[in-house]
Amino acid sequence: MTTSMPSGFSKKSLLDYTASQRGSFEKTLKELVEIPSVSAEPRHQPEVAEVVSRAADLMQQMGGEVRVLETGGHPLLHARFEQSSDYPTVTVYNHLDVQPADMSDGWHTEPFRFVQKEDRYWGRGTTDDKGPALTALWGAKYALAHQTPINVNFLWEAEEEIGSPNFESTVKRHKELLETDSVVVSDTVWVSRTRPACPAGLRGLQGFRFFLETGETDQHSGTSGGAARNPVAEICQLVADCFDAKTGDVKIPGFYDDVVEPTKAELADLKKSGFSTATFKKDHQFKSLRVTDPVEIMKRIWCMPTFEVHGIEGGYHGPGVKTIVPPRATAIVSCRLVPNMDARKIVKLVRAFVKEKNPDVKVQAEHGLPAYQGHTVGPHPDAIRAAMNFAFDKEPVFVREGGSIGAVVPMEKVLKAPVFFLGLSLPEHGYHAPNENYDWQQAEGGMIAFADYFRRVAAIEPAS
Amino acid sequence: MTTSMPSGFSKKSLLDYTASQRGSFEKTLKELVEIPSVSAEPRHQPEVAEVVSRAADLMQQMGGEVRVLETGGHPLLHARFEQSSDYPTVTVYNHLDVQPADMSDGWHTEPFRFVQKEDRYWGRGTTDDKGPALTALWGAKYALAHQTPINVNFLWEAEEEIGSPNFESTVKRHKELLETDSVVVSDTVWVSRTRPACPAGLRGLQGFRFFLETGETDQHSGTSGGAARNPVAEICQLVADCFDAKTGDVKIPGFYDDVVEPTKAELADLKKSGFSTATFKKDHQFKSLRVTDPVEIMKRIWCMPTFEVHGIEGGYHGPGVKTIVPPRATAIVSCRLVPNMDARKIVKLVRAFVKEKNPDVKVQAEHGLPAYQGHTVGPHPDAIRAAMNFAFDKEPVFVREGGSIGAVVPMEKVLKAPVFFLGLSLPEHGYHAPNENYDWQQAEGGMIAFADYFRRVAAIEPAS
Repeated sequence: MTTSMPSGFSKKSLLDYTASQRGSFEKTLKELVEIPSVSAEPRHQPEVAEVVSRAADLMQQMGGEVRVLETGGHPLLHARFEQSSDYPTVTVYNHLDVQPADMSDGWHTEPFRFVQKEDRYWGRGTTDDKGPALTALWGAKYALAHQTPINVNFLWEAEEEIGSPNFESTVKRHKELLETDSVVVSDTVWVSRTRPACPAGLRGLQGFRFFLETGETDQHSGTSGGAARNPVAEICQLVADCFDAKTGDVKIPGFYDDVVEPTKAELADLKKSGFSTATFKKDHQFKSLRVTDPVEIMKRIWCMPTFEVHGIEGGYHGPGVKTIVPPRATAIVSCRLVPNMDARKIVKLVRAFVKEKNPDVKVQAEHGLPAYQGHTVGPHPDAIRAAMNFAFDKEPVFVREGGSIGAVVPMEKVLKAPVFFLGLSLPEHGYHAPNENYDWQQAEGGMIAFADYFRRVAAIEPAS
Repeated sequence: MTTSMPSGFSKKSLLDYTASQRGSFEKTLKELVEIPSVSAEPRHQPEVAEVVSRAADLMQQMGGEVRVLETGGHPLLHARFEQSSDYPTVTVYNHLDVQPADMSDGWHTEPFRFVQKEDRYWGRGTTDDKGPALTALWGAKYALAHQTPINVNFLWEAEEEIGSPNFESTVKRHKELLETDSVVVSDTVWVSRTRPACPAGLRGLQGFRFFLETGETDQHSGTSGGAARNPVAEICQLVADCFDAKTGDVKIPGFYDDVVEPTKAELADLKKSGFSTATFKKDHQFKSLRVTDPVEIMKRIWCMPTFEVHGIEGGYHGPGVKTIVPPRATAIVSCRLVPNMDARKIVKLVRAFVKEKNPDVKVQAEHGLPAYQGHTVGPHPDAIRAAMNFAFDKEPVFVREGGSIGAVVPMEKVLKAPVFFLGLSLPEHGYHAPNENYDWQQAEGGMIAFADYFRRVAAIEPAS
């Protein structure tokens, strides 16, 4: 089916639209941001349910056909805006849950208060991912109101930040309801404000907790130190055995076996991506890095796996020195994975390595997320390129993304629909960091890009 | 000056005395134990002052010349029972402050309720150190009432459990008031109920905090992991560089240089000390130890220095896995020191080692406590031996003590008086542990041992 080009898609009309919608967009974003939908924290379970229910109301008011799907964990929201069953369907994926946030982490404003200063919006979830979610919705609203021959489904998850543990099973159960021709995900970060970027791949993730218990209670390090085992020290040693903290090199045998190094072409793309070491350092507020060469940094954050320790639980954390031998310790660690690596194989390698190094340490493996190899050629990537260029006056580069989005691989696998990315966040927006923010420039451009993308996708012969 | 032997020091007379005093001893111990004099907790500051004031009243009622010395921290109590300025003076050191205690730590009775069941007394401070303090006082009462040609001073500290931060400076300011010929400390633990023990040395302590900052705030380990430095991992690596957690071997060059290994005679003493690995494990609730041979354990906890990590501050400590690159980390560590080691030299070695391994790590050294080499030969140790044997029908072994008593070295240094130990606590009394207790057998024997010790010291020509 080839469709005629709908009217009203000039930049001027779209800018008039975004200007007229700014108030209602900001009001809605404020409402969602002020619901602390922290999926990782059991005490916030009611708020996760509340944000889904609030978003369901919003979709319904806009005319969507809404279903809140039970997952066994936090609910999954689906809303269909159908114009005709003859039209192709695009599913927009976003998530409504957020990372934990606490004033003590260094926030300058209350994390769950929406604070606006001129064009910038502060608050947990503004950029990850409530802002981009609403931006895509407002873009779709325009496309639908202007007779774009397309159906738009929204799939808004509430468990993304905890690794989408129930996403695949839920999608499997509701395969027919969720049927779609393609998916577009808006949950990724540009190289810089002047350099739009689309991921051509995502890293996967495999988390672990290493637990060691050698006693029952704190003991006096004077009366027992020297003979007593020290679980914090043994856990430190195990972490140091797993990888070299200075270089980042993972020392677990077999860890790198399945890694496919980036091709010359990919490296050439990285070189022209506009990535700047100084900007990367500034955006993430790093004092120093393991390496300084920009291509080497991009390789490390996008194309190579990692071993990371997030914290050591156990022992004394207060002021001064409390001279105890602690009874137990836990290392909270994870590996980022790249395409062709298998999370289950990594779990096996890590378990075997820990068993060899310290057999008393218990290894708990978290739900793994596979890495994702994306699409950079074909009509949809071309539509993304064109829409981004139209909205932001600059063509995006296709780089990789170092983070993981648990839903991506299951959507391709179960729905058999290709997944593309139209991300809107900037490095300085602070994904997972204190003082997370989003801004009107990205929202406005994003609405225009999405509206234009839907128009272009409508012009592509649907796969089905 | 040689003195004549006073009368009334038969075992029979002393047992009659202790039997007649039991009621008043227990009543006084109950009063002191029920004052929660936790020096580490600011909210208990009034109770620390209260216990000192209550003890001052007690000393005054008994005829002592009492001074409550301001220290800048918790007050220091001094009471002099002078019979004649011609007589030698023995100073008895104890402390009135206690470790924190909370029902949730596993107490079976309220920690600040004095609970008596037959001959046993439960409550925080019963054995550490209010029970031994009163035991020594009751022993002195008898010796003084029986014309022993001696003066007895009591020096009762209220900051022992927080490392005696103001003890040395206070003793310096009141050097003349505190003048003494010798000191006897009652704040140490036997090997077992059937094996009296006196420490021939105490370990010292040098605490450190290792601090590394590589960023400002938590960052997403997906978007920056691989290129970002990980301060928790670098701190773990540094700890693993400092010592082997499995064996306990310290890897800092020069660390062991000044350690004097225990002599054959000392090892022989350790062998006959009655120390049991199984009891040590049980008393401290350890699941396993670095070594199992009892002599090797005693060497490690009493005669050898250690490197210990008490906790790693920084990063994520909650449930699950929060995939951040943390901005900073602190290792809280300490070294136990043995006689002949110099805390300042250890600070230098540690600083140099850390600088070489990771120059970005800042090292903060805490106030160091030197190790203490005790006296095992001479008339005072002989008097201790004989008094213990007289009271408990068993000669004590001279072992070492793994912990530190901050007041000991300053007393020798400032007052130029030798320090001896007449400890009364048992391993099962639970120093620093929940369900701390003391018992009438140790109190009764202790009163007799102290009375007999004063009689014997009076017979020794005073050093001055």
